[in-house]
Amino acid sequence: MSKLRFRISMSLDGYVAGPEQSVDNPLGIGGEQLHEWVFPLAAWRAPHGLPGGEVNQSTRVVEESQAGIGATIMGRNMFGGHPGPWDRNNPWNGWWGDDPPFHHPVFVLTHHAREPLELEGGTTFSYVTEGIELALEKARAAAQGNDVALAGGAKVAQQYIRAGLVDEMEISLVPILLGGGERLFEDTGTDLHGLELVRSVAAPGVTHLKFTRR
Amino acid sequence: MSKLRFRISMSLDGYVAGPEQSVDNPLGIGGEQLHEWVFPLAAWRAPHGLPGGEVNQSTRVVEESQAGIGATIMGRNMFGGHPGPWDRNNPWNGWWGDDPPFHHPVFVLTHHAREPLELEGGTTFSYVTEGIELALEKARAAAQGNDVALAGGAKVAQQYIRAGLVDEMEISLVPILLGGGERLFEDTGTDLHGLELVRSVAAPGVTHLKFTRR
Repeated sequence: MSKLRFRISMSLDGYVAGPEQSVDNPLGIGGEQLHEWVFPLAAWRAPHGLPGGEVNQSTRVVEESQAGIGATIMGRNMFGGHPGPWDRNNPWNGWWGDDPPFHHPVFVLTHHAREPLELEGGTTFSYVTEGIELALEKARAAAQGNDVALAGGAKVAQQYIRAGLVDEMEISLVPILLGGGERLFEDTGTDLHGLELVRSVAAPGVTHLKFTRR
Repeated sequence: MSKLRFRISMSLDGYVAGPEQSVDNPLGIGGEQLHEWVFPLAAWRAPHGLPGGEVNQSTRVVEESQAGIGATIMGRNMFGGHPGPWDRNNPWNGWWGDDPPFHHPVFVLTHHAREPLELEGGTTFSYVTEGIELALEKARAAAQGNDVALAGGAKVAQQYIRAGLVDEMEISLVPILLGGGERLFEDTGTDLHGLELVRSVAAPGVTHLKFTRR
């Protein structure tokens, strides 16, 4: 069966977003520092339609995390921090732009039903109101034998981790303190459901820790 | 000037001791898992007077952390979880035994003054009631040009980190969840005071992350 794979950047103090997150500042105060290691990489720029970029020890980690993914699951805040129910007459299309970097079906966990949103470049956002298991089922079907990426944010990731549904997890540990915000491992219990550290990669500004079931 | 160096084992969810710590269970529930990587090592067994043991990628990290140390600072709970003021007639000597593994002067931060305790093998415990800066001053003097080790626990370490007094920090990240207990980076703010990740070492059951001032 296709795997559910999760990669996220986390600070040394365990945060995946800084304090005072808002629609205007979705990463919270200082949260952009979590992602500074990835932006210069050619492997990140290419799927975002940008030329050039660096190659370093993070390259294969980013390439691995992108390879063989046929669908993505994300929480509603990651889709685009819309404050209330969807408005048919004035639809909010998230902050991914007209040509999002996914290029495959994306399933957004939300409490508010909505028709799918088809954008350029092969990305369609579908909205799932029936919880994490059905979202995974739908994503697996859409992935057509490929794996499913769990994009976050923290609360959705916590639900999948707790339920033991994550098959691979890459923690990109960034050596900074955010001092507050959203912690990934909060109320996630003590059970990694068989996930074991299988390799670590030291790269500029980040250490990548890969967990899989042996 | 001699450096203040700090090494500690931390879980993936950021804990350096598990929940429900007590005098009977100073590491808290599950906390012993944080140290399973170190016990088999010859480099750990030797200073504890034990023969044999393994050599692996952790060996040089443990050897580095022990080399050039002339004094140690620790919190009172790490000395030995004594529940009240010292009792001259029935002194509590901690849980380090008659021949503790330090073999140099150890300064215990406490609110309760007490005469120094001289044990076998060169370890003397002195008790400092005047706070972290004086403890560091005394430890530096006692170290006679060597470095000072900050042994923990979490609350003492947090004070030194916040004050910017830590010169080197080795986080031995253990890929487990403890789900509760004492977090190292809690109320430590956002300032690492110039400490930067300078190397990481992948070893069996642990990833060592070394921070120094460049």
